[in-house]
Amino acid sequence: MQHVSLMAGSSNAEKLELVAQSIRSFPDFPSKGILFWDICPILKDPRTLTAVTDLFEEHVRKNFPQVELIVGLDARGFLFGPLLSQRLGIGFALVRKKGKLPGPTVGVAYDLEYGKAEAEIQADAVAPGQKVLIIDDLLATGGTLFAACELMKEQKAEVLGCLVVIELKELKGAERLKPNSVYSLVQH
Amino acid sequence: MQHVSLMAGSSNAEKLELVAQSIRSFPDFPSKGILFWDICPILKDPRTLTAVTDLFEEHVRKNFPQVELIVGLDARGFLFGPLLSQRLGIGFALVRKKGKLPGPTVGVAYDLEYGKAEAEIQADAVAPGQKVLIIDDLLATGGTLFAACELMKEQKAEVLGCLVVIELKELKGAERLKPNSVYSLVQH
Repeated sequence: MQHVSLMAGSSNAEKLELVAQSIRSFPDFPSKGILFWDICPILKDPRTLTAVTDLFEEHVRKNFPQVELIVGLDARGFLFGPLLSQRLGIGFALVRKKGKLPGPTVGVAYDLEYGKAEAEIQADAVAPGQKVLIIDDLLATGGTLFAACELMKEQKAEVLGCLVVIELKELKGAERLKPNSVYSLVQH
Repeated sequence: MQHVSLMAGSSNAEKLELVAQSIRSFPDFPSKGILFWDICPILKDPRTLTAVTDLFEEHVRKNFPQVELIVGLDARGFLFGPLLSQRLGIGFALVRKKGKLPGPTVGVAYDLEYGKAEAEIQADAVAPGQKVLIIDDLLATGGTLFAACELMKEQKAEVLGCLVVIELKELKGAERLKPNSVYSLVQH
C-alpha cells in the first residue's frame, strides 16, 4: 500500500504557516493566569496533521538519521509520536504518569508548578545505548520533558534531542533541557 | 513523499498473528484480581503498529467508506487513532477525562468499577450529522466507549461503530454498546 502525502507540493514555509494558524489559545485554563495552547485543531484537519509529521520527519532525517526510537509523553505526545515513528520505520515507547504502566517500571520524580509528580517507563522499553528522540505537544517550563530525559539517562539510552509542536520561549524550558536540543515548529 | 507499508506482502492472517503475539498480560494490575492487557509491545515494533493500522484501515474502507471523523479515547486511543485517520485522509477528535480540554466542552458522566467519571469533547470537535468511528485500545465492560457514543449522540453525530485492538469477550462490552457495532483485532 502506498500513501501520497496530503501536503505534496507544499513548501515547508506553507506547512509551518498552516500549523501555526491551527493552534489556538484559551486564557485562564486550566486555572486562572494560565494561557492554554490548544493543538486539537491540528488533528481535526488531516492536512495539518500531515504537515506536522512531514516537518518533524524532515528535521529528523536531516539531523538525527541515527535515531532508533521515538519516546512520547502522556497524553498529547501520543498523538504525534506514533505517526513520526511509523514514517521513520522505528519503534515508539510511552512515558506515562506513575501507576499507568504494567510490569517492571523505572520512575523519576519531577516538580510541577504545585507539588510533585512521577514519570515512568517500562523497564524493557528502551535498551542501553539506544538513540532516542523525545516528543510532546508543548514545551513550557520543561518539567516533564526533563523528567523523560532523566529516565533515558537512568536507562543508559542516548537522548538525541526533544521535539515539540509549540515552544513557549518566555518560560525558558529549552535552557532547562540543555545540553539536549529542542526543535519546535511554532514559538510563542 | 510516498510511503511503502512495512507489512507489504503479508496476509491479514499474518498481520493478526503478529498483533496477537505482541500483546502481553500482567496479573493484578492496576489492582488485585485485574488482568491487564498491555499493548506497548505493539508500538515498540514498527511492523506490528503498521499491521494494526493496515487491519483497521482495510476494515473501515470495506465497511464504513462513508466515515468522516475518527474519535479517539484518552490516552491509549490516541496511539492508534491519528494513524488511522491519516491513512483515511480524515480528521481526528479527542475524548478526554473532565477538565483536560479547553474551551466550550460537552460532557457525559459514566460509571467506573468504583465511582463515576466524566468524559468530555470540545463543543466544536464534531459536527451534527458527521459520521464517526470511535477507537480505543481495549474493550472491557465498555464504560468509556459507551460514554463516547453518548457524547456523539449529544452532538447529533452518527456513530458508525467502535474499533478496538483487544476485546475481552467475557465482560460483554459489545452487548452494552449495541446497536453500535464493535470491531476488534484480538479477542480474549
